[in-house]
Amino acid sequence: MIPFEKLKDTIPEDLLNRGLSILATESKPIKLLFEQRRIPQKGWKDPQITQLLTSFALMDSDKDSKTASVGERTGRVASPAVSRLSAGFHHGIGSSGDLAEPQPKAAGSSLLQYFANKLATDAIRRFGASNIKKAVVLPVATGMSLALALSAARDLTGANQVVFPRVDHKAPLKAVKLVGLNAKIVDGAVFGDAVRVPVGEVEKSVSKDTCAILSTTTFFPPREPDDIKEIAKIAKEKNVPHIINNAYGVQSRDIMKQVNSAVAAGRVDAVIQSSDKNFLTPVGGAIAASHDEDFLDKICRAYAGRASAAPVTQFLAAVLSFGVEGYERLRDEQEANRRLLEESLRRLAKKHSERLLQVYDPLSVAMTLSKGNAEKIGKTLFASRVTGARALGKRDFGVCCPEYSTDYINFDAAIGVKRSDVVLAVERLDKVLARLR
Amino acid sequence: MIPFEKLKDTIPEDLLNRGLSILATESKPIKLLFEQRRIPQKGWKDPQITQLLTSFALMDSDKDSKTASVGERTGRVASPAVSRLSAGFHHGIGSSGDLAEPQPKAAGSSLLQYFANKLATDAIRRFGASNIKKAVVLPVATGMSLALALSAARDLTGANQVVFPRVDHKAPLKAVKLVGLNAKIVDGAVFGDAVRVPVGEVEKSVSKDTCAILSTTTFFPPREPDDIKEIAKIAKEKNVPHIINNAYGVQSRDIMKQVNSAVAAGRVDAVIQSSDKNFLTPVGGAIAASHDEDFLDKICRAYAGRASAAPVTQFLAAVLSFGVEGYERLRDEQEANRRLLEESLRRLAKKHSERLLQVYDPLSVAMTLSKGNAEKIGKTLFASRVTGARALGKRDFGVCCPEYSTDYINFDAAIGVKRSDVVLAVERLDKVLARLR
Amino acid sequence: MIPFEKLKDTIPEDLLNRGLSILATESKPIKLLFEQRRIPQKGWKDPQITQLLTSFALMDSDKDSKTASVGERTGRVASPAVSRLSAGFHHGIGSSGDLAEPQPKAAGSSLLQYFANKLATDAIRRFGASNIKKAVVLPVATGMSLALALSAARDLTGANQVVFPRVDHKAPLKAVKLVGLNAKIVDGAVFGDAVRVPVGEVEKSVSKDTCAILSTTTFFPPREPDDIKEIAKIAKEKNVPHIINNAYGVQSRDIMKQVNSAVAAGRVDAVIQSSDKNFLTPVGGAIAASHDEDFLDKICRAYAGRASAAPVTQFLAAVLSFGVEGYERLRDEQEANRRLLEESLRRLAKKHSERLLQVYDPLSVAMTLSKGNAEKIGKTLFASRVTGARALGKRDFGVCCPEYSTDYINFDAAIGVKRSDVVLAVERLDKVLARLR
Amino acid sequence: MIPFEKLKDTIPEDLLNRGLSILATESKPIKLLFEQRRIPQKGWKDPQITQLLTSFALMDSDKDSKTASVGERTGRVASPAVSRLSAGFHHGIGSSGDLAEPQPKAAGSSLLQYFANKLATDAIRRFGASNIKKAVVLPVATGMSLALALSAARDLTGANQVVFPRVDHKAPLKAVKLVGLNAKIVDGAVFGDAVRVPVGEVEKSVSKDTCAILSTTTFFPPREPDDIKEIAKIAKEKNVPHIINNAYGVQSRDIMKQVNSAVAAGRVDAVIQSSDKNFLTPVGGAIAASHDEDFLDKICRAYAGRASAAPVTQFLAAVLSFGVEGYERLRDEQEANRRLLEESLRRLAKKHSERLLQVYDPLSVAMTLSKGNAEKIGKTLFASRVTGARALGKRDFGVCCPEYSTDYINFDAAIGVKRSDVVLAVERLDKVLARLR
Repeated sequence: MIPFEKLKDTIPEDLLNRGLSILATESKPIKLLFEQRRIPQKGWKDPQITQLLTSFALMDSDKDSKTASVGERTGRVASPAVSRLSAGFHHGIGSSGDLAEPQPKAAGSSLLQYFANKLATDAIRRFGASNIKKAVVLPVATGMSLALALSAARDLTGANQVVFPRVDHKAPLKAVKLVGLNAKIVDGAVFGDAVRVPVGEVEKSVSKDTCAILSTTTFFPPREPDDIKEIAKIAKEKNVPHIINNAYGVQSRDIMKQVNSAVAAGRVDAVIQSSDKNFLTPVGGAIAASHDEDFLDKICRAYAGRASAAPVTQFLAAVLSFGVEGYERLRDEQEANRRLLEESLRRLAKKHSERLLQVYDPLSVAMTLSKGNAEKIGKTLFASRVTGARALGKRDFGVCCPEYSTDYINFDAAIGVKRSDVVLAVERLDKVLARLR
Repeated sequence: MIPFEKLKDTIPEDLLNRGLSILATESKPIKLLFEQRRIPQKGWKDPQITQLLTSFALMDSDKDSKTASVGERTGRVASPAVSRLSAGFHHGIGSSGDLAEPQPKAAGSSLLQYFANKLATDAIRRFGASNIKKAVVLPVATGMSLALALSAARDLTGANQVVFPRVDHKAPLKAVKLVGLNAKIVDGAVFGDAVRVPVGEVEKSVSKDTCAILSTTTFFPPREPDDIKEIAKIAKEKNVPHIINNAYGVQSRDIMKQVNSAVAAGRVDAVIQSSDKNFLTPVGGAIAASHDEDFLDKICRAYAGRASAAPVTQFLAAVLSFGVEGYERLRDEQEANRRLLEESLRRLAKKHSERLLQVYDPLSVAMTLSKGNAEKIGKTLFASRVTGARALGKRDFGVCCPEYSTDYINFDAAIGVKRSDVVLAVERLDKVLARLR
Repeated sequence: MIPFEKLKDTIPEDLLNRGLSILATESKPIKLLFEQRRIPQKGWKDPQITQLLTSFALMDSDKDSKTASVGERTGRVASPAVSRLSAGFHHGIGSSGDLAEPQPKAAGSSLLQYFANKLATDAIRRFGASNIKKAVVLPVATGMSLALALSAARDLTGANQVVFPRVDHKAPLKAVKLVGLNAKIVDGAVFGDAVRVPVGEVEKSVSKDTCAILSTTTFFPPREPDDIKEIAKIAKEKNVPHIINNAYGVQSRDIMKQVNSAVAAGRVDAVIQSSDKNFLTPVGGAIAASHDEDFLDKICRAYAGRASAAPVTQFLAAVLSFGVEGYERLRDEQEANRRLLEESLRRLAKKHSERLLQVYDPLSVAMTLSKGNAEKIGKTLFASRVTGARALGKRDFGVCCPEYSTDYINFDAAIGVKRSDVVLAVERLDKVLARLR
Repeated sequence: MIPFEKLKDTIPEDLLNRGLSILATESKPIKLLFEQRRIPQKGWKDPQITQLLTSFALMDSDKDSKTASVGERTGRVASPAVSRLSAGFHHGIGSSGDLAEPQPKAAGSSLLQYFANKLATDAIRRFGASNIKKAVVLPVATGMSLALALSAARDLTGANQVVFPRVDHKAPLKAVKLVGLNAKIVDGAVFGDAVRVPVGEVEKSVSKDTCAILSTTTFFPPREPDDIKEIAKIAKEKNVPHIINNAYGVQSRDIMKQVNSAVAAGRVDAVIQSSDKNFLTPVGGAIAASHDEDFLDKICRAYAGRASAAPVTQFLAAVLSFGVEGYERLRDEQEANRRLLEESLRRLAKKHSERLLQVYDPLSVAMTLSKGNAEKIGKTLFASRVTGARALGKRDFGVCCPEYSTDYINFDAAIGVKRSDVVLAVERLDKVLARLR
């Protein structure tokens, strides 16, 4: 909105034109975004992201010097510091009727959400699940997003039981409970080193009371990803909703292929993924994706009231900062770090007379702790400033089956982990094992 | 953590000491906060707020140069721009087990939440409801917070019906639905100008299926606040949970007195209030308060997974920026603006042969639109940049009863509304009325 | 440069248009600035200032993703933190040939300087010296700016003596010395309470060796402002350059009238004023103004090399933040505070058996310290956190004459001083006097 | 100053301690800086730099809520935006008496300057000139800093002629003129491809009128660096001051060796270097270094009045962001880029039937333009977004001798230039040459 054309006859024309052409070059990514509404090929620089967000925030009615506001909620904030904490988006997103609706007092917040959703859709499709039609950024993390999806499934079916191939994670179970449903947990069993939930058992658990099947792609070894393609077929055959918890699967090309196949082969009502685990935003958002746009709309309408714009803002900024190339580079690094992690832990295992678990997992590696003492090892490791490791006893919550064959520890080489993190973590585990034995 | 004592023998001692005593003066509010854990008497300056938040964010494990992080979620973010959008709090709040639990990887985020909750408790008590024992800041707005509270009530009772004195607002109804409950709506009736939901009807609606009574303190005239003291007595007598939707009631000394009396006189399991409507934060948070700490814990445990730290950060910043004195000053202004609004609208009403509705409401004033045309008036007013006004026809969603006696329009003189907003809004309404008639 | 027109078919058209019209409203001040190139009537909000500076900084060649830079000085900076410290203006201002020339690699920095100079010109003219033709913002403070002006005067005359009506301030004397000139100091004398430098003595001091007369408008009582109108007449008659050190005179309507009369009545080659003392910028810049554009050009060409853009940026930001109305309001406050200061000190003087000095000064007030002890009183007052007061003995550097009649102390009620500063400072002086006697 | 010890009994002790130990880790660099007062081994992160500057700025008296300020210059600023533009340092540096003196109202600004000077000293010594005793950061760029040094030399000698081995750069000549001196230019002569100023001629030019010799280490080929060691010997023998303009020599290990030898072998009163060319700050500062601390003090006292703190702040931030390791890495890159540049231009020269000039220069490479047309080539190249190249005709200002043997163009591979800049610039030159011939 700055009328640069009015700058004539200020500085020499040559110089002005050069300045304007630099401005045009640097603004080109914004132009492309507005035209294409897709993830940029190259990541944006931070000031470009700031410029976009600032411009959008200026379009909200609280910024208008000419507005008279006489409502109980019209974007007033306590101080400039408070405004900065929301990047100037004070009105939240959605309206009391629908999370996905534009907010009538806030054109800028509405544009923010529009582009976030467009880019989320593009991300899910380009990063592997091209069968997906649409995605939306939800202002709550994976657990609460599962709750919204399950609530939508309940409305479809009127039933109240969620068939849940066991994953020992509290958030999905709390999601089931929050919306007033019951989980029918299908236990995992040990197959060699792997813990799997047999598809046959899942199928058997489906009944007329089934509100949805809630499957999972990413957890920690020895628990392997669910066979979501087969589950999708069952869901289709049995005509029950199927929600996939793809918590941190977007980062993995392999997992995304499986998601895509599942969508093609059977029924998948929604795929839920974390924005922080996959797109390196602060914790607090998720992406719901589906082949079925109606179901997504139901999810958005299930949300009660308006919501914080922060998770949406953060997702948009993160995706713009990556670009397609940046994200694929991170995936390459993830794969290289996963290989490094496996090699390093294999050497370590040998040294300490342990072995790696033979389990399929594109992100994580687990090693036996055959002499037990998992809890102590875990705590000592955490005290030596290794975060994210999980050391479990064979009967602990986390093994996803009645009893596993051994204690173990696992490390993730997830997206964003640096090579030096892997090296350091393995070194420190070495010391901890040496010390505690 | 900056070792200022090491600055000896740099600049002249006198000058250094003067500098250090200025630092000490300016840091004193932080010291008092840490000691007293209450809202400061005077509001903080923005740089002091920033300093506190920055220090806390530096305590999270992602900031640690010595950490090796091998988890799928350890606070990594896409870029500095993304980090700034969360004030450096990347880990979210809570853990998968409990929203109110500290987050083990994030001492700073946990302190943030600790102080937010302490100050929320202090706020609710000092601003009028001293019978409240504890309050927590929820990372979702009023609607979703009601859902959490209702879910907790369902767990207590096992019942599935929410008795809801009618308020024509979508969010509470969606909250009821989200958690798998049914609303038993008790209709409003016209008493003079006022629309009230008779307490007797509320009482009659309570049954063995009642999971909770959901009452409301703040809505728009002609709907008057519920008689929450009487409803609390009924809840106590009938032994059913009672949730008060006190959406924007904290700002009103009068409403807070009523809340306090209700807590004393009967049963109130939780009082839910908006952080943006009462404390001028961006939309996205709420405060749940109760005399019953167990019930609050249940609410926190109902939340599935971790959540965005943004609403908590914003609340803490807002409250610190006000201080007790600043907030009371805002309340004084609110009361003055409410009087101004009433006078101005009364004059306007006379001029256009309308009249003010005789309805109790400490924040809002309504005027008849006896010649109808409410929708058009509303739209034209909005187009002339008045936000927050509500013009309704007598049968519209919003009147809270089967049919009201007249069309009307209402303006709020809520907290944060400026005198000039009131003056301007009334002037513009004058023009709109003149033009459309 | 953001192509908002490409946003069609994103959010509903009504909402988009509303957002765009808010943007247009908020961008209007920038449009007016570009068209009028004058100080805005109303002050800008901080985000508008930031937006202007950010846009300009984006036009410099270091921002250009397509530039290949192979020079020794092409705007590269060590880190984003370093860039922020210059608001993104890395190239400095000017070129090695001329401070006022645009910098060929930096369209944005050149625009910054263009507008700073335009607004400086407008400021000097509108705030009282309408006879001035042009002003430029110099990237050095008053002292160094006097040096540049004196160097230009030397080039004009080839002479080497500066006639300097005595002011006991080190900076002007150092300016004289820096450029290789000698000061011929004309002593002050006591007239009643006032110290004045008799114009006749100034006239007598002018000789064929005179390079310039350096007069002063603002100092501390008892030294009164020079009679610059008479000195300008002498300069004209004797055909010698005349530089006015108007260090903090812009704030005073009275002083600016005198400057304007001097320009009209005689010869004034340049008027130098501080940007921090008059426009509340951080220390580091000055404004040189003149009726004679050639002389200003000479001043700019006297500067050796490029210079920091910071003082220019800060001046532009400060002037935009005031607007004409804001600045006039500050002047009103200054006048009110000056009156308050006089009354308060008069009362205090009576209480302590002292009296106010009868001296003309629109900014400052002085009171006798008839019992001596000035140094101790000054130090104690400073230790009690009063800054800016001057307590002097009658023979101290500062009295501007061989010997004054009494010790004294003076306080300024300069622009930006708050009423509470005046009240507090007088209270503390009261305590100090009570304690030390 | 934040009393973290008061946080006991907030969050669990383990977690709190972990947070505090992260804080301690991250604050360690500040502790080391305070203790050692040297450049850190590793560069600091941006938030650490910000934290240091913020803490210092908080120590200035304008931040003190308890101060009553009644001066004409007590650090008041127009708005928070203006304050941000100076990182909160409002008082400038120095006092009217001496640039190097602490500023009595500003402990923080004084500390800023203290550390900037300490680190400048350390930088000059560690980066090659260990014979230097002390260095100070000047708030003006190289040209004006030369003026200050020459003024100090004039005070020593009372003479008025500067012997200046010819370098075709305007700034040093203007410095000479500004302070009222005359330049005795010693012409360059062609030796093979090189242009050198014969030391014998320099010696002959020294006379009783000589105020100083002003030699130069870095310019553009074919002009080679002066033989400063020999000149230093002459200066010692003849007892005349010797100022070295080492404008962008700190980046070069080779040049710094020469500076160090000159200091050891003869007389060097001051070495002046640019802060932006060597340390990647925004334009506006310089570093004066000397074996002779008294002479440095004279330079600082030559400055008239206070100065902008911006150049000092920017230097401190830049040096902290590099650390010794970062700076040495940049030097390694500079050397590699210099080699790449030479190879690339050699290939290009061959293709276009030109040749490289055989001239000693550790930073820059020049190629003949034997078919002339230098000006057009220069302009076309600039228009194709190559900045910093110099294309000169053999008689142009820039060749440093009466007439050179050929037209030529030169590129610098200076510190901070990226490999891609070199590659791109050579490619574009290739296209320009192909097009224009």
